[in-house]
Amino acid sequence: MKPLMVANHAKWPAKDDPIFAIAGKAQEATRKYGSENVINSTLGALMNDEGKLIAFKSVFDTLKNMPNEEIAAYAAIAGMPQYLDAVVEAFFTEHKPDAHIRVVATPGGTGSIKEAVWNYTNEGDEILTSDWFWSPYQTIAEEGGRNIVTYKLFDDEGNYNTEGFKSRFKEIIDRQKRLMAIINTPAHNPTGYSVSDEEWDDILDFLKEEAKDLEKKIIIFVDSAYIDFAGVGDERRAFFEKFSNLPDNILVIAGFSASKGFTMYGLRNGAVVGISSNEEIANEFYASCVHTGRANWSNGNRGAMLTVAEIFNNEELKKSYLEEKNHYKTMLRKRADAFVENAEKCGLELVPYRDGFFISIPCDKPYEASEALTKKNVFVVPLGKGLRFAVCAVAEDKCRKAPALIKEVMDGLK
Amino acid sequence: MKPLMVANHAKWPAKDDPIFAIAGKAQEATRKYGSENVINSTLGALMNDEGKLIAFKSVFDTLKNMPNEEIAAYAAIAGMPQYLDAVVEAFFTEHKPDAHIRVVATPGGTGSIKEAVWNYTNEGDEILTSDWFWSPYQTIAEEGGRNIVTYKLFDDEGNYNTEGFKSRFKEIIDRQKRLMAIINTPAHNPTGYSVSDEEWDDILDFLKEEAKDLEKKIIIFVDSAYIDFAGVGDERRAFFEKFSNLPDNILVIAGFSASKGFTMYGLRNGAVVGISSNEEIANEFYASCVHTGRANWSNGNRGAMLTVAEIFNNEELKKSYLEEKNHYKTMLRKRADAFVENAEKCGLELVPYRDGFFISIPCDKPYEASEALTKKNVFVVPLGKGLRFAVCAVAEDKCRKAPALIKEVMDGLK
Repeated sequence: MKPLMVANHAKWPAKDDPIFAIAGKAQEATRKYGSENVINSTLGALMNDEGKLIAFKSVFDTLKNMPNEEIAAYAAIAGMPQYLDAVVEAFFTEHKPDAHIRVVATPGGTGSIKEAVWNYTNEGDEILTSDWFWSPYQTIAEEGGRNIVTYKLFDDEGNYNTEGFKSRFKEIIDRQKRLMAIINTPAHNPTGYSVSDEEWDDILDFLKEEAKDLEKKIIIFVDSAYIDFAGVGDERRAFFEKFSNLPDNILVIAGFSASKGFTMYGLRNGAVVGISSNEEIANEFYASCVHTGRANWSNGNRGAMLTVAEIFNNEELKKSYLEEKNHYKTMLRKRADAFVENAEKCGLELVPYRDGFFISIPCDKPYEASEALTKKNVFVVPLGKGLRFAVCAVAEDKCRKAPALIKEVMDGLK
Repeated sequence: MKPLMVANHAKWPAKDDPIFAIAGKAQEATRKYGSENVINSTLGALMNDEGKLIAFKSVFDTLKNMPNEEIAAYAAIAGMPQYLDAVVEAFFTEHKPDAHIRVVATPGGTGSIKEAVWNYTNEGDEILTSDWFWSPYQTIAEEGGRNIVTYKLFDDEGNYNTEGFKSRFKEIIDRQKRLMAIINTPAHNPTGYSVSDEEWDDILDFLKEEAKDLEKKIIIFVDSAYIDFAGVGDERRAFFEKFSNLPDNILVIAGFSASKGFTMYGLRNGAVVGISSNEEIANEFYASCVHTGRANWSNGNRGAMLTVAEIFNNEELKKSYLEEKNHYKTMLRKRADAFVENAEKCGLELVPYRDGFFISIPCDKPYEASEALTKKNVFVVPLGKGLRFAVCAVAEDKCRKAPALIKEVMDGLK
């Protein structure tokens, strides 16, 4: 396709979002057959058992009780200061690393990835992530002329493939000198995998060794969009402490999203968090991200930021918010347990699930399987390497039933 | 400054926003001396006579009455369809050009400029605008390695300098072949100038002549962020009709902002509007902007979009909204008239003001003048070529007094 008026780098094919397409079919089936007869696992947002989006009362009461002019006014370019403080508290809890930390507001988690990719890689660079990955990484990378390259997320025993990560990382950084790796953890999208503390040690030991070559610039982007639905307490945040006292040439950038943890999807609220042992590097990160923010979206959603800040500055409100979140976290855990147990029972193979909104099923013919499942009124998203079942969107009893239905269809395709 | 960890292109000096700095001083003076003794013309948002931000009741009642889950959910990537329709109606009113029009949601007007600049210019390109210009154009351009170059906005008689525009445009496009010009009209920030219909004819005749060279790609970005506060009725939108039946190699892109016209500054809601005679070029624009949106901020503020849509889909609500907006438009007009009249009386020279939030005063020593004015409790923003007085933020009686105070200080600096 030859560009007509756009610049060469900005010519993209018009394409429909496959998730929205299948979600549309699921809605149609629901209208036709009734929601009790349809399993709609397409959308990546937390739904109640009736398939209605969950919006935390603590969050929206706070937002709606705010004076209009507080919502109407512009936010500071870097984000409202009280919000940036609240992000540090909400994100790290008791596991804040001993490092220089800078936070800049972004539109959702996507904005944080954009900031990191744009500012810490060059055109033509390879960016490393796992072979199961959230496809917008590719969109964000290619928009700026970067390339996503992958390592296998799981080894042949189904364990996290730290060896694969290390060898691919080394191969690229020896050549490229600067390398960003995106690690989506805990509660990886789409597999639900969470890198364990021991696996983090293994990764960081390797990176510290690599960092002895001072020419190398190592950037680890930790995409923690689903962290609020990982683990039971805050134990899935413990790995943050490992980012203390890293060498100067390892910069950790974390993506904070208020979309899931505050059910603020449509409010576009997030932050990019820079973690460095070196104060100057932290300040450089801040200046760079503020510039990128000003040049792309100017500033963020003020009411959404003030809502997060108010929740963390009012003990009673914070308590209700945490109770509400924990209630739904438990609901999600029960759904996922039901799915995993029943997958085991019927022999449906899953990639290792630990936390979060999604469970993935390895499959050679994902598009055929997804299509065939629609005939049974089961709607799952086909991905490059399998099917994504969104436990966040499906009631527990349906999570119990779904694995056998999926197994049956997949066996029929063999 | 050598980059430490950021990529070379992303190294930016930390700098304080001069507007926020002087706004801070104004707030301090207000606390100390009382608001009745301070003229704070620093902030670019509509304030009531007591200096409180105006938030339209029609807008915020609509937003706050929306079910929480409608605000919480993700919007479609391109924007909510009913919002995109409402933008066309709100933006063009009766003056829609006869052309293929595509609309994509963006975070505020800034997002629309980003989309246009990124997708329709190349790294190293020069982008043309007037010498009085909104400084974030520079930030947006330099972020992607583009350069802002300027022509003199006014000729020696103080008229719009179409000749200057044309000769600078021709010089660059003969060399560069592709050229984007940003025209901030009506109600130019910071001067308040509005390009007249006759001046538009002159510009478009010239561009059509240039477009006869089919190698040339001409992109006109019309930044109309302040259009809702221009003119009396909708006559300041009449020029949109001139974008009918343009040659294929003239693409007009307009920036729509809900910040001012809906007092939604902090909600970050806007749109980029592509206008072309050629359907394929319009579709190419759409695909390119949707990709950029996905790669930068993912999607927009759903509640804000649905609010605009609801206002334009409910005749009664639309009526209250338009009445409310017109009330404040009249208030703004009275303030500006008061300022201009009194500037004439005391001999304070202004650049030609026609519409909008700001009036500019040419001045060789803007920083000294702004500083000296703070001693009189008058707070104005220093710009490269003069002082910016925000009539949007200052009560009419103070708009009457301010010109003489400014004149006195400027005379003292000669």
